[in-house]
Amino acid sequence: MSKVIAFHQAVPGYLNATASGLELTLSIKGPQPDTLWVRSEPDNEETLTPMSSQDYQGEWASYKVVIPFETGHFQTRYLFKLVWSDRLLWCSALGLSTAMPENNHQFRYVPAGQVPGWVAEQVFYQIFPDRFANGDHSLTPAEGAYDYLQGQKTRQRQWGELPQSREGAIEFFGGDLHGIEQNLTYLQEELGVTALYLNPVFESRSNHKYDTTDYSSVDQHLGGDDALVQLSESIHQRGMRLILDAVINHTSVFHPWFQAALAGDEQARARYVFDDKGDYVSWKGHRSLPVLDFANKGNVETFISGEDSVVKHWLRPPFNIDGWRMDVIHMLGEGPGAYNNAHYVRMLRKAIKAENADAYLLGEHFFEATSWLQGDQEDAAMNYYGFGHPVRAFFTGLDIAYHPIQLDAADFANWLARARAVIPFAQLTAQLNQLDSHDTRRLITMLNGQVDLYLAAIGLLMTYIGTPCLYYGDELALPGEDDPDCRRCFPWDRAQWPEVVFETTRRWIAHRKALVSLQRGALVTLHAAGDVMIFARVLESEQCLIAVNRGDATAVLCPDDLLPMARSWRLVEGVAQLEEASSGWRIELAARSTNLWSR
Amino acid sequence: MSKVIAFHQAVPGYLNATASGLELTLSIKGPQPDTLWVRSEPDNEETLTPMSSQDYQGEWASYKVVIPFETGHFQTRYLFKLVWSDRLLWCSALGLSTAMPENNHQFRYVPAGQVPGWVAEQVFYQIFPDRFANGDHSLTPAEGAYDYLQGQKTRQRQWGELPQSREGAIEFFGGDLHGIEQNLTYLQEELGVTALYLNPVFESRSNHKYDTTDYSSVDQHLGGDDALVQLSESIHQRGMRLILDAVINHTSVFHPWFQAALAGDEQARARYVFDDKGDYVSWKGHRSLPVLDFANKGNVETFISGEDSVVKHWLRPPFNIDGWRMDVIHMLGEGPGAYNNAHYVRMLRKAIKAENADAYLLGEHFFEATSWLQGDQEDAAMNYYGFGHPVRAFFTGLDIAYHPIQLDAADFANWLARARAVIPFAQLTAQLNQLDSHDTRRLITMLNGQVDLYLAAIGLLMTYIGTPCLYYGDELALPGEDDPDCRRCFPWDRAQWPEVVFETTRRWIAHRKALVSLQRGALVTLHAAGDVMIFARVLESEQCLIAVNRGDATAVLCPDDLLPMARSWRLVEGVAQLEEASSGWRIELAARSTNLWSR
Repeated sequence: MSKVIAFHQAVPGYLNATASGLELTLSIKGPQPDTLWVRSEPDNEETLTPMSSQDYQGEWASYKVVIPFETGHFQTRYLFKLVWSDRLLWCSALGLSTAMPENNHQFRYVPAGQVPGWVAEQVFYQIFPDRFANGDHSLTPAEGAYDYLQGQKTRQRQWGELPQSREGAIEFFGGDLHGIEQNLTYLQEELGVTALYLNPVFESRSNHKYDTTDYSSVDQHLGGDDALVQLSESIHQRGMRLILDAVINHTSVFHPWFQAALAGDEQARARYVFDDKGDYVSWKGHRSLPVLDFANKGNVETFISGEDSVVKHWLRPPFNIDGWRMDVIHMLGEGPGAYNNAHYVRMLRKAIKAENADAYLLGEHFFEATSWLQGDQEDAAMNYYGFGHPVRAFFTGLDIAYHPIQLDAADFANWLARARAVIPFAQLTAQLNQLDSHDTRRLITMLNGQVDLYLAAIGLLMTYIGTPCLYYGDELALPGEDDPDCRRCFPWDRAQWPEVVFETTRRWIAHRKALVSLQRGALVTLHAAGDVMIFARVLESEQCLIAVNRGDATAVLCPDDLLPMARSWRLVEGVAQLEEASSGWRIELAARSTNLWSR
Repeated sequence: MSKVIAFHQAVPGYLNATASGLELTLSIKGPQPDTLWVRSEPDNEETLTPMSSQDYQGEWASYKVVIPFETGHFQTRYLFKLVWSDRLLWCSALGLSTAMPENNHQFRYVPAGQVPGWVAEQVFYQIFPDRFANGDHSLTPAEGAYDYLQGQKTRQRQWGELPQSREGAIEFFGGDLHGIEQNLTYLQEELGVTALYLNPVFESRSNHKYDTTDYSSVDQHLGGDDALVQLSESIHQRGMRLILDAVINHTSVFHPWFQAALAGDEQARARYVFDDKGDYVSWKGHRSLPVLDFANKGNVETFISGEDSVVKHWLRPPFNIDGWRMDVIHMLGEGPGAYNNAHYVRMLRKAIKAENADAYLLGEHFFEATSWLQGDQEDAAMNYYGFGHPVRAFFTGLDIAYHPIQLDAADFANWLARARAVIPFAQLTAQLNQLDSHDTRRLITMLNGQVDLYLAAIGLLMTYIGTPCLYYGDELALPGEDDPDCRRCFPWDRAQWPEVVFETTRRWIAHRKALVSLQRGALVTLHAAGDVMIFARVLESEQCLIAVNRGDATAVLCPDDLLPMARSWRLVEGVAQLEEASSGWRIELAARSTNLWSR
């Protein structure tokens, strides 16, 4: 029996939500099944609803059915059963299988847990403020301006010098919010990004500011509250978006609460977690970062539920930020073990959405974030687990801990597919995908400077499902070893820019913005073996085909099927050929390339 | 690089729980890793704890580590990372992988959610009371004794006649509790089973009694309360166990509450679920089964939390049952959609365990029960999803809906492995595995009478992880189409018994009871392809090897490795040969056979 391809995604064209239920569409190419059902469990017991063929487009048949929203569950879940005279197949979020899929791999739709529509349209740009642009030199902390831990004093460094490990968190290059504002034209009009995510900007003695001393003030060395207001206005005038970083799992040891706690103030002490021996619990053992206890009502009010709580305050005028990136959000909780974490994250969601229903709630998770992405908690996660880790592993042969990993394209596609299968589609489109961040060695450095592989990864970033985010300097293949070297100053001397990297990145960004199927389309993996992965993005009549070749040689393949309904492809980016051959298609991909076709 | 085998299970020898944490053992054969960690997330963030080699046994190295129980979570979860100079592997509950495993496939241990230790030691036997043995003919409902639905009247049938679909629920053959008691010698001493699970015995007008009219009385036609007391005493004197079936999702339409509700009694009406149009909601649309609403406090008290609630009453003297099989437990809840189901199942667990900490709470789930088996709800499920469905599909080529399914041994082993990977080990050992039940066509009938395949399935039932349960008559390959034909009378004329089936089943039961590794041992899949699956059960120094060949021909294989630490195997059951060969092992399996070795 010849090959069956079937796909469904919870995207327009394949799913229409009404007030009471979902109209689902399943598209099938190949021998059509004798009978076809959608399987759901509205009362926790199997219900099979037959689907009848409604529409043929070429070799593809589309089947439709309406299922009601489940009344007993927050999510409505379903999958499809296809039966022929001699066999059956299930179609789940993980694809086609003979064995019955796990409940965990059912398609899932969350009527009451959608994500802001604007997110998937963005190309984000992450900025580490001290290192992007110095807009006002008078703000830069002076040499020895104040003390940090163990009597360390601030160091003032020259723009472009390399960050020094031994200086830790206390060397300043002088980047500030004014510098960002002065370069919005570059960001929007030259590079083409549409939204900014800034590492922390609130008062703190360190350069990274993950140790806050005052959550109600933008740090004076970055320009203070006024600079943020001005930056936010400029950004919004341009139709761009801005999200900030909230670090509420722990404070700085210099925070007045913690100083009061050390001085014996019982009320202040109750904000923090102390162990059996009376010692304070610190984040991952970093003694400068005492952990806040959310069993304490004062903390809940200060950060989440109070009338002018931290998360509400900055969403309001005159700051008007568009969302929050919440630092180590999975670690918030009662006591040292993140107890009751989901409860507080749900509260956070309620507080943020009540202030602005369109605000983006993004969680930092260095590992799998699935349980936070089911519609009741976060809109999306920093997608290390489902994008950054596997992509970096596939291209560099090193995992996130820099251990050697032998991952072929089949393993790679499977990792990506498993990560996608357990997350509702809306949340998938809002996942923040990154190749680099302030917490990782830069990809170009892991690749030992191999620009073609680096640009292949950029191409994948801009075509994969989820919202792409560049880390400042990625557009120039700025190198960097582990923190703090991955936080180098942005090189403003254009004479030194690698033209091909910049121009290619810029084109990929433009494609991402021009092709809505890259933003919101279903993702269908068509081929994955050896060094090559081919997938499609499909949104109603728009279709894109993406082919990645990691290998050192030109790849030539004749895949069974390349895509639903498509015959006339246009190469949009890359070095590749696609031809109809006698038995289907012949595709040729340049070594170390990502290639994009559309129709 | 040659093959790596690694295994860990949460069983004695590989896991020791202390008051504060777990000592874990990982055993590795093949090239030993340069570094090895256990990975856990005690505060929702990765913690890698190095493991050092402690012990070599032949080619196997055992590594140990202690991790503390998680304070923020009900479960403590972990997996292992093995790193060599040029690659890495993860060892999760799903086995070895290069890609990072899903959180869902971490090993899981539940300090506060263990299962009764006696369950895994049992071989259960399910009895449909009207059809097993008529111990007192005077109790048998007379022809036309009373009315059922639509004026149907009871029919009295002769023992051994075939059940008639057209008679539905109202034909009686006269089996009763006395009949069971009179045959305990057969069950325990001849066949060898150790525990009984009875289909419902409480007052009801039907023969299946899934439509209860009085939860406080054993049906008079089965012998009434006195017969149950007598049966329970006899069972316990023999050191056997007894569990009953509770049907509390719905009642009979003849239940006095429902009759009162129809008559306009508001308090009675509030016990049931009514739809917007004022009509009662019935189970899966069966109008005779009105659904109870657990939003109603009266129901919660009557069935769960009251001083003499239904689930407590029968656990107490003089009835002393050892546990409950809860009918469609996943469907309990508020309103029609099983809303808040987990809350009520947790309450059930608390009520039952408070009455008898050693009671067995078994849930009926025709499909996946994973979310009920995490230690806070059920001890175990009727394991249709993780055993019955895949085994019946593998041996017969038909799925649970009798659709054709092409499942090779690799698909089959993968289905079993995925089902196991998401359930804590203790719960796995207590899962009730069945080939047949009162709700399914009998396996021997699906196999068109192929006795050798049937006995191969019996062998798998007795060697697989989980507690085996025969359905009455399985030991005689009693045939039966769908309900009601699968509920035929037990054939007591021994002259008609198929000697080989009975003797072979009896031997498999004896092996199950003699080999503790079959009851509580780790399960390691060693080979799965085509028609053959080979796995091991390991418990400290006892090891069993099980090889299933579904094919019509003798199978000859030379697997890479057969088992940890083993050289001298004894064939306990089956027709097979196992020899050391130049490059490992040579194994020969008779067509259509399950074979067991131990050492």
